[in-house]
Amino acid sequence: MSPEKYLRYLVPSVLFGTQRTKQILQATPSDDITRTDAERTQITVYNYDAANLHQTELKAVHESFDFRDNDQVSWINIDGLRKSDVETIGLHFGIHHLIIEDILSLHQRPKMDEVEGTLYCLLNMLYYNDKQHAVEQEQVSIVLGKNFVLTFQEDPSRDVFDPIRDKLRLATSKLRQRGADYLCYTMLDLIVDNYFIVMEKLGDRIEHAEEEVIRNSNTRSLARINYLRKELIVLKRNIAPVRDLIGGIIRSESELLDDRTTKYFKDVYDHIIQAYDLSENYRDIMISMQDLYVNNVNLKMNEVMKVMAIVTCLMAPATVIGGVFGMNFDVIPTAHNQWGFYTAVGAMLLIPVAMLVMFKRRGWF
Amino acid sequence: MSPEKYLRYLVPSVLFGTQRTKQILQATPSDDITRTDAERTQITVYNYDAANLHQTELKAVHESFDFRDNDQVSWINIDGLRKSDVETIGLHFGIHHLIIEDILSLHQRPKMDEVEGTLYCLLNMLYYNDKQHAVEQEQVSIVLGKNFVLTFQEDPSRDVFDPIRDKLRLATSKLRQRGADYLCYTMLDLIVDNYFIVMEKLGDRIEHAEEEVIRNSNTRSLARINYLRKELIVLKRNIAPVRDLIGGIIRSESELLDDRTTKYFKDVYDHIIQAYDLSENYRDIMISMQDLYVNNVNLKMNEVMKVMAIVTCLMAPATVIGGVFGMNFDVIPTAHNQWGFYTAVGAMLLIPVAMLVMFKRRGWF
Amino acid sequence: MSPEKYLRYLVPSVLFGTQRTKQILQATPSDDITRTDAERTQITVYNYDAANLHQTELKAVHESFDFRDNDQVSWINIDGLRKSDVETIGLHFGIHHLIIEDILSLHQRPKMDEVEGTLYCLLNMLYYNDKQHAVEQEQVSIVLGKNFVLTFQEDPSRDVFDPIRDKLRLATSKLRQRGADYLCYTMLDLIVDNYFIVMEKLGDRIEHAEEEVIRNSNTRSLARINYLRKELIVLKRNIAPVRDLIGGIIRSESELLDDRTTKYFKDVYDHIIQAYDLSENYRDIMISMQDLYVNNVNLKMNEVMKVMAIVTCLMAPATVIGGVFGMNFDVIPTAHNQWGFYTAVGAMLLIPVAMLVMFKRRGWF
Amino acid sequence: MSPEKYLRYLVPSVLFGTQRTKQILQATPSDDITRTDAERTQITVYNYDAANLHQTELKAVHESFDFRDNDQVSWINIDGLRKSDVETIGLHFGIHHLIIEDILSLHQRPKMDEVEGTLYCLLNMLYYNDKQHAVEQEQVSIVLGKNFVLTFQEDPSRDVFDPIRDKLRLATSKLRQRGADYLCYTMLDLIVDNYFIVMEKLGDRIEHAEEEVIRNSNTRSLARINYLRKELIVLKRNIAPVRDLIGGIIRSESELLDDRTTKYFKDVYDHIIQAYDLSENYRDIMISMQDLYVNNVNLKMNEVMKVMAIVTCLMAPATVIGGVFGMNFDVIPTAHNQWGFYTAVGAMLLIPVAMLVMFKRRGWF
Amino acid sequence: MSPEKYLRYLVPSVLFGTQRTKQILQATPSDDITRTDAERTQITVYNYDAANLHQTELKAVHESFDFRDNDQVSWINIDGLRKSDVETIGLHFGIHHLIIEDILSLHQRPKMDEVEGTLYCLLNMLYYNDKQHAVEQEQVSIVLGKNFVLTFQEDPSRDVFDPIRDKLRLATSKLRQRGADYLCYTMLDLIVDNYFIVMEKLGDRIEHAEEEVIRNSNTRSLARINYLRKELIVLKRNIAPVRDLIGGIIRSESELLDDRTTKYFKDVYDHIIQAYDLSENYRDIMISMQDLYVNNVNLKMNEVMKVMAIVTCLMAPATVIGGVFGMNFDVIPTAHNQWGFYTAVGAMLLIPVAMLVMFKRRGWF
Repeated sequence: MSPEKYLRYLVPSVLFGTQRTKQILQATPSDDITRTDAERTQITVYNYDAANLHQTELKAVHESFDFRDNDQVSWINIDGLRKSDVETIGLHFGIHHLIIEDILSLHQRPKMDEVEGTLYCLLNMLYYNDKQHAVEQEQVSIVLGKNFVLTFQEDPSRDVFDPIRDKLRLATSKLRQRGADYLCYTMLDLIVDNYFIVMEKLGDRIEHAEEEVIRNSNTRSLARINYLRKELIVLKRNIAPVRDLIGGIIRSESELLDDRTTKYFKDVYDHIIQAYDLSENYRDIMISMQDLYVNNVNLKMNEVMKVMAIVTCLMAPATVIGGVFGMNFDVIPTAHNQWGFYTAVGAMLLIPVAMLVMFKRRGWF
Repeated sequence: MSPEKYLRYLVPSVLFGTQRTKQILQATPSDDITRTDAERTQITVYNYDAANLHQTELKAVHESFDFRDNDQVSWINIDGLRKSDVETIGLHFGIHHLIIEDILSLHQRPKMDEVEGTLYCLLNMLYYNDKQHAVEQEQVSIVLGKNFVLTFQEDPSRDVFDPIRDKLRLATSKLRQRGADYLCYTMLDLIVDNYFIVMEKLGDRIEHAEEEVIRNSNTRSLARINYLRKELIVLKRNIAPVRDLIGGIIRSESELLDDRTTKYFKDVYDHIIQAYDLSENYRDIMISMQDLYVNNVNLKMNEVMKVMAIVTCLMAPATVIGGVFGMNFDVIPTAHNQWGFYTAVGAMLLIPVAMLVMFKRRGWF
Repeated sequence: MSPEKYLRYLVPSVLFGTQRTKQILQATPSDDITRTDAERTQITVYNYDAANLHQTELKAVHESFDFRDNDQVSWINIDGLRKSDVETIGLHFGIHHLIIEDILSLHQRPKMDEVEGTLYCLLNMLYYNDKQHAVEQEQVSIVLGKNFVLTFQEDPSRDVFDPIRDKLRLATSKLRQRGADYLCYTMLDLIVDNYFIVMEKLGDRIEHAEEEVIRNSNTRSLARINYLRKELIVLKRNIAPVRDLIGGIIRSESELLDDRTTKYFKDVYDHIIQAYDLSENYRDIMISMQDLYVNNVNLKMNEVMKVMAIVTCLMAPATVIGGVFGMNFDVIPTAHNQWGFYTAVGAMLLIPVAMLVMFKRRGWF
Repeated sequence: MSPEKYLRYLVPSVLFGTQRTKQILQATPSDDITRTDAERTQITVYNYDAANLHQTELKAVHESFDFRDNDQVSWINIDGLRKSDVETIGLHFGIHHLIIEDILSLHQRPKMDEVEGTLYCLLNMLYYNDKQHAVEQEQVSIVLGKNFVLTFQEDPSRDVFDPIRDKLRLATSKLRQRGADYLCYTMLDLIVDNYFIVMEKLGDRIEHAEEEVIRNSNTRSLARINYLRKELIVLKRNIAPVRDLIGGIIRSESELLDDRTTKYFKDVYDHIIQAYDLSENYRDIMISMQDLYVNNVNLKMNEVMKVMAIVTCLMAPATVIGGVFGMNFDVIPTAHNQWGFYTAVGAMLLIPVAMLVMFKRRGWF
Repeated sequence: MSPEKYLRYLVPSVLFGTQRTKQILQATPSDDITRTDAERTQITVYNYDAANLHQTELKAVHESFDFRDNDQVSWINIDGLRKSDVETIGLHFGIHHLIIEDILSLHQRPKMDEVEGTLYCLLNMLYYNDKQHAVEQEQVSIVLGKNFVLTFQEDPSRDVFDPIRDKLRLATSKLRQRGADYLCYTMLDLIVDNYFIVMEKLGDRIEHAEEEVIRNSNTRSLARINYLRKELIVLKRNIAPVRDLIGGIIRSESELLDDRTTKYFKDVYDHIIQAYDLSENYRDIMISMQDLYVNNVNLKMNEVMKVMAIVTCLMAPATVIGGVFGMNFDVIPTAHNQWGFYTAVGAMLLIPVAMLVMFKRRGWF
């Protein structure tokens, strides 16, 4: 019955997990703290032009070197990062060593960079974990070169690039007709579109939380609101800098970007702005909801107080009359009267009824 | 009497509808989620210059092709969107395929775009649903070309363009004297003016809510405030980007826009700025109102507490005196006295009266 | 005693008037909703240079035409607007028809415009209504031309331009030495200075409200705070865009403005900035005041609770002891003792006194 | 015991003075409201170069005219302003008449202006009144000309320029080596440094207030917080525009400012930025403090409620048992038993003890 | 039991220390208040190029003069500042005397300056004091010249530059290959990276505080929140201006900075932006936590109220029935009945049980 017990027994531990706070507050961009090497690196190359498509699974890093300068567009996807592998590739493909550091380090803020003939984007793919109801993020690095796109991912088990793989197999797809910059656009577009899917699921959770707050404003619903607020922090932290990232690409006058493709990046920019606006709306609704919660808690307390006040009032006549006629005086008027008792009890009952009627009129309940 | 019951029985379900939250949180700008095709497309063409006006109802999409390059201004209005139709028209009128995607997808953020000799505006017409007291939005796409304006609407049953139809019939109207850019201006002007009508109705609701909060601060009025806050989110989400949209048109140096027309777009810009300021005022008043609500709820609770405190105090003498003379001691002073009982009861009555006088002086009620 | 009654009987209806909310939320800039024509138009012309001053009351609109191109500066003031009159004047003085629409429509946002050789300012004169304690606004349009200034006012009974009339009669005044731009500056200066007078009166009200909150924090004082917040909205809504308006004049490189006059407009700009800062200070003080109010209400409640708690505690011994010795057992110790009753009553009195001393030490009251 | 009495008797009137609010809300920049003439004007001139220093007390305004064009730097300080004097000086030293108006009017917003070969700064010196614990301000006008600096002060009894007087007497001081612009810099530097002294004293007050809030959260401490918030408004109102003022000097490319001196103005700029940041920190700490206050008030109330709840609970068994055995039935079990009374009283005592143990375990106190 | 006692006895004095407030509110950038001279100055010189490294401990200040103009890069680190020493070095190395003042004065806002061929950075190294749980700051001044870097620190016992010393010993390190600008970059990078370490520790404290708030919302946890908010002020006060500082370096087109090094400064810039974002997240989480705290305190109070209400209700039947049958009337029905007492007591017990069942159904506990 004490609030602590509520928390321990009724609230799923995930809602009050301070571990989530810990994850969100993580602060480790120091250069020397890099991710531990993945157990194995899986390198897939798609080498294509309008006419041909070759998909190869590479066994060793150095096999990728051939794809740097051939006439076709190459997408080299590295899943699972090992320091030595990334540095080898970086060296060969002319990637600045600071960017290699960024690729290898964790918890980076999304950013883009244009350096020595390559364009570098670092951002997070977001997934919604349906079990833990948490927004998960996986860092992805995209390096756009003359005729190639390198992508570095941590977790080989999932990414959001499957539609690209499908479209590559389609010789008539626009992806096959265009260059590496269009491939890069498609990637950013898919990542940003995926934000909306995550937001939709969060939106569902917000709706559920609102329903719960309306039905039953207890600690559990506050915990849920608090939990959702943390997830919104994760969301916003990813969306806001991606806006700058894509804005940076549009403003950059890199030779890597075809004029025709700028139009497409502007389209992604519109989407990310919309995502940003929407996340602001989410925040506003969360605030409304918290106000509603606080009000409901207060209303419940008011109810309890009201019942107490009414009971106290209704008891008052009985207490007073009982006290009056319970006194041990020799001379008590009506004490010997046959109807005295009934009159007294009658008053005890009628006065409260009169009070109830009066309270009702005042709109107390 | 429990707060949940209040909500279930007294509050119209629309006020606490989490469906509304769902609608507002909708997040689906992904390219592949397009609107389901309308059952039928209705294409109306107004072909006019200062001297002549031809109004035609087209049976098939390809009939519109003739109106692209003739010397008169053509307004081609497409109500009810079908993917194939829109793509056919787009192809013929030289609309970029990304813009066609925007026309076909839902829940887009208002925006303008200037591409390959056409100027594209996407925004929402707002309607106030008097039954559900909700702000409804319908996406409209306006494509301004050399001598034509294409408009794409979803819902054939309503739009805000009737005044245009009236003015077109008037040979002396300015609309007939001027080109396609002036037609485009008139459309934006009507859409923005319609925002004020919606805002006026919302303003009425805010006024009603305020009255209710003053008269009777119960859960219902909080629900109303909450509901209105959500509608304000819809409003602001539409107004803010339209400001950028029209600002973009003014800054654009498109050849499609006559210098004389810029002045008119500046006028619309003034209006949308005013709408934005007004929506800020709405927000401020909502906040004031919520403060008032919270205060009223607290005052009510204070009243209840006060009554309880007073009753407790007034009962105290009777309880104490009754307790004293109700004890079963052999020797009780004044017990055998003839006026003992009357003295005791007198004290029971007089002390509370004295207390009441004192409370009154302290300004307790 | 119920909060509603407080509102109905004690609070002057003006404080809780939702009409005021309605006025503030008014939203009608649509072109077709123009002010109803005034019953009569009153046109006054001041035609002057350093040497001469002619003041004429015109009978008909067309008489003003002569003042357009003569060498002297003309101030043509139109009080009470009729559509036809304004359009006639506008046509002759070369005013763009969009500006004529602005002159004729109500509730416009303050703005300036430079078009076809005239400079147009629309803003509000503010008056403080001492009876209703409301900030009233009257729209004034100022059109600055080569050698003339046109002013359009709605209400002939009042304006803030009397000091101009006085100074015009003074041949040595700077106003008489300078051109139309200096006249225009003097007008804006007077309007802005008048804002300070209105703010000073509002400041008095704020001070009164604060005094009331300190003396007696009841619903009435909250109503007052709420009411003042609405007036501040009116104030800010006028001041913020006037800042942009005057900034726009300073930045404009219109040939109508003499270089020497720019300095004077900068002076007005300093004043409006100061007015803006001051209105921010007002807001901060209002927030402080509301916090103070909420705290005082809580303190009052705490007082009530405290008294109740103390009475409950003090009654406890009497209740318990009375209960103990009121039981009908055969064997009750000290029941037959001569001093039993006195001991029991003594305990009933002494224990509460001891409790009071203890409470006092704990700082409970 | 009522809150009003607290305010009247316990709180020093200065804390709840609405006069202070009046002073802060003062709004009078209208041109016609000038300060009443000082009783006497005191003019002091320091005329110096690296080699010589002449300090003269002038008897009449016109004596200052000689110092305008000589080769040495002249600092002419006018204490106590009379309209005629200021206008005479202004005319001779070529000061624009709008600036003369600014010098003569009160409650101006700090600003700088560069006009007709002079650079004009208006700002406030701040003093901390140790008795009233209020931030006082005195307007000072600084006019920098080719070879002279004019300063206009209201109050002859105090200023912050004593260090300048000391350094002027030192032939080796940098002040003596440099021109009038360095003198102007030194003045601004001293004024801004003085802000820090005022802030330090305010910081002490904030610290005291915090200590009081922690020790004893009563109305007095809220009054103190409220009072300090008003002083912070005064502070910020002065600091923010001085930042713009000094920024304006740095950006201005006036010939009056030696390139070498810019470096020094940048130093003052760093200081004023720091003062601004610090005032923001003050505000944050005030907000924290208010939250702490509200919480402490609530905790106190919780304590009272808890005691009341516990007393009510502990009394319950005695009330019930006393009620049971106080009933006048013929047959009451154990009524004739010798230990009946003791058993009943024992239950009356033991049950509350058991309850206390249970409450303790639940962490209620 | 009174809240003051909680604070005095239970809360570690450091949590409620107003001393911390005093430290944070410190305001002393006046030129004349300089730090007291350190007891001894310790000067260490690293003189290096790709081939050689000489590390020297200097005995006197003038020995450092040789390192100004030799071809190798020199890092001259001065630990413990004495006015005369700093001025001597400043004079020889051509440091502007205003910068020397900055080096010598305390509590400066972080800033950078480019003057007379040197680039000056003043910022704070932050340390987390594990005992006092406070963020400590130590001012460090970095002067970058043609071939040298001068660093001035206050406290010789600690700094964050050890990794530099290690890398200098490594002939193959990039630090040895590059010039003085790279050395300067490395310093800023280490200082900023150290901010993350401090933030991580603060993050741990926030997590602990959150856990405590969830487990046990008492005054102690509020004190902790309040304390952490102050530390966040210190953090933000340092991070925000360092962002400007590094941005200033990137924008500066100083000849001291090699084009290749700009890339590295951009990397530091990314880090400091990330630190800034993170500190915003910290703030958001603190606000969530405070809301949670306030809610938990209210819930506890609700619990107490509920128990009191329930006890009051349960006692009511016994009080009323006891009152009824305790009256001394001659005729009391059932008084002589054998089962009267049992019936009355039964009612006393059964009615509360029925009430409990009803309350349970209403969801009261």
